[in-house]
Amino acid sequence: MITVLSGGTGTPKLIRGLRQILRDNEITVIVNTAEDLHQSGHYVSPDVDTVTYLFAGILNTDTWWGIKGDTLDTYHAMEKIGYKEPLPLGERDRATNIARTSFMQSGMTLTEATQKICEGYGISAKILPMSDQEVTSYVVTEDGSLMHYQEYWVGKRGNVPITGIRRVTADESPLMATDAVISAIEESDGVLIGPSNPVTSIGPILECGGVREALSKKFVAAVSPFIGNRPVSGPAAALMTAWGYEPNSAGTRKVYGDVVDLFVQDMKDTVEVEGAMKLDTMMTNLKKAESLAWDILSYMPGLSR
Amino acid sequence: MITVLSGGTGTPKLIRGLRQILRDNEITVIVNTAEDLHQSGHYVSPDVDTVTYLFAGILNTDTWWGIKGDTLDTYHAMEKIGYKEPLPLGERDRATNIARTSFMQSGMTLTEATQKICEGYGISAKILPMSDQEVTSYVVTEDGSLMHYQEYWVGKRGNVPITGIRRVTADESPLMATDAVISAIEESDGVLIGPSNPVTSIGPILECGGVREALSKKFVAAVSPFIGNRPVSGPAAALMTAWGYEPNSAGTRKVYGDVVDLFVQDMKDTVEVEGAMKLDTMMTNLKKAESLAWDILSYMPGLSR
Repeated sequence: MITVLSGGTGTPKLIRGLRQILRDNEITVIVNTAEDLHQSGHYVSPDVDTVTYLFAGILNTDTWWGIKGDTLDTYHAMEKIGYKEPLPLGERDRATNIARTSFMQSGMTLTEATQKICEGYGISAKILPMSDQEVTSYVVTEDGSLMHYQEYWVGKRGNVPITGIRRVTADESPLMATDAVISAIEESDGVLIGPSNPVTSIGPILECGGVREALSKKFVAAVSPFIGNRPVSGPAAALMTAWGYEPNSAGTRKVYGDVVDLFVQDMKDTVEVEGAMKLDTMMTNLKKAESLAWDILSYMPGLSR
Repeated sequence: MITVLSGGTGTPKLIRGLRQILRDNEITVIVNTAEDLHQSGHYVSPDVDTVTYLFAGILNTDTWWGIKGDTLDTYHAMEKIGYKEPLPLGERDRATNIARTSFMQSGMTLTEATQKICEGYGISAKILPMSDQEVTSYVVTEDGSLMHYQEYWVGKRGNVPITGIRRVTADESPLMATDAVISAIEESDGVLIGPSNPVTSIGPILECGGVREALSKKFVAAVSPFIGNRPVSGPAAALMTAWGYEPNSAGTRKVYGDVVDLFVQDMKDTVEVEGAMKLDTMMTNLKKAESLAWDILSYMPGLSR
């Protein structure tokens, strides 16, 4: 049993590689929910959906979000009558979001709603939202005001100077992991932190009450999303700097701290990280993702084949 | 200028005929909203949408609701993951409902949201929801409990004995027409009550505060939806009986009362209604709808061509 901490894009690529080696029912994924948002009356959970679609075999692996071949008829019809959805949702992607919202309004937690959706898609992996509390990542802009991360990254394309990161729970209570998340870590043979954004994807998971303590008892491997001072994808660099860390593998290592036993950086990454293992982390195709997954597993006690 | 009181199905058929004779900008339609409902986080207004789609030239005239050629991908994807929407919405139909909900959540009234949607579709007719208050039609079942009309008709297909009709506003305040509705009646050269369900479509409009008084100063023609003891379509008979009226043209005439100057019943209808004019009201095709519209207009002072 492996437990993976995941955001969007980078880690799902690695999970796709893992699936070539492990059976789905040997994989648990703890997914970031700090990018969740409300739109058009739907509760949208982008990273949970990306991982769900990956295991359902319907993920659009050109963009690494949304459903392969999904259409945008509703989106375009809304645009025509003057309502432009900030985050365009395809028909079948929208279905997930409407169903989830309906399940949650009828009293299910996000964890329960996710499980029901996974059952609907016949998924045998376990997909666990990191928390059932609603939590949002904000960037702090130069004038000190908060901007929703999605507005910063999707709306403004990251073209706004930022000075900090703030995580806010809906009721301002401390952010806690679910019991299912803690159990998944405890019952696993090892944990893999994928190459997702340390600030907005992995950071929130590590911040959930109980996670660091559970991780400290397990063998944890982490893959850096940086090569030099640039992330493989996404807005991690500006966010890391605003968060007070170097925007590279050394900064990432520092964010993760002492829970990590094996730190993997790209073979082309020249940033010095003590004890790091260098591998080819550019998962430009499935074969390379499988190869990276194989190499990492071989160093994880209890998971090497 | 003609003002039409409309529900779904029957009256839209007659409006389609009227559009062959009058320009769209000479037509105002006051639309029943007592069948509105909340579903999947959307504010759904079935009759308003039917009339909107008719004027937009996209109404599915096989079913007389929804959009021609619309697809159900979201609906089917939701069904697959365990959420069955009570009233299936097509992609483009859903767009109208999401956009309307968004407009209303940003502070627009239903009237304003409808106008914005009509502008988006380039509609030059005026489409006015009867009221900006939320109001719901309930049927009273045998044990005295209330059942939402949509649940009765769509969910149970009308197969439940009922003993009464109840109209309830969301805040239990008296139901009032909008100012726009009253002005539309006042500024018209005549009013046409279409062959829609007297209990759930026309009744609610007549109940809106101000409507009967405004109508009493105008020439009003009404078309019965009954032939004998059967409505041309829909569940009107059981509803009329539960409401305390004969389920036929005589009962309909009584519901409408003294605001009506010209009452039209079908030429095959043998039920005696004093002063009624008999015409062919079976609008099985556009030509017959145009012919019926033409005949009625010819008896309306200020509207005859």
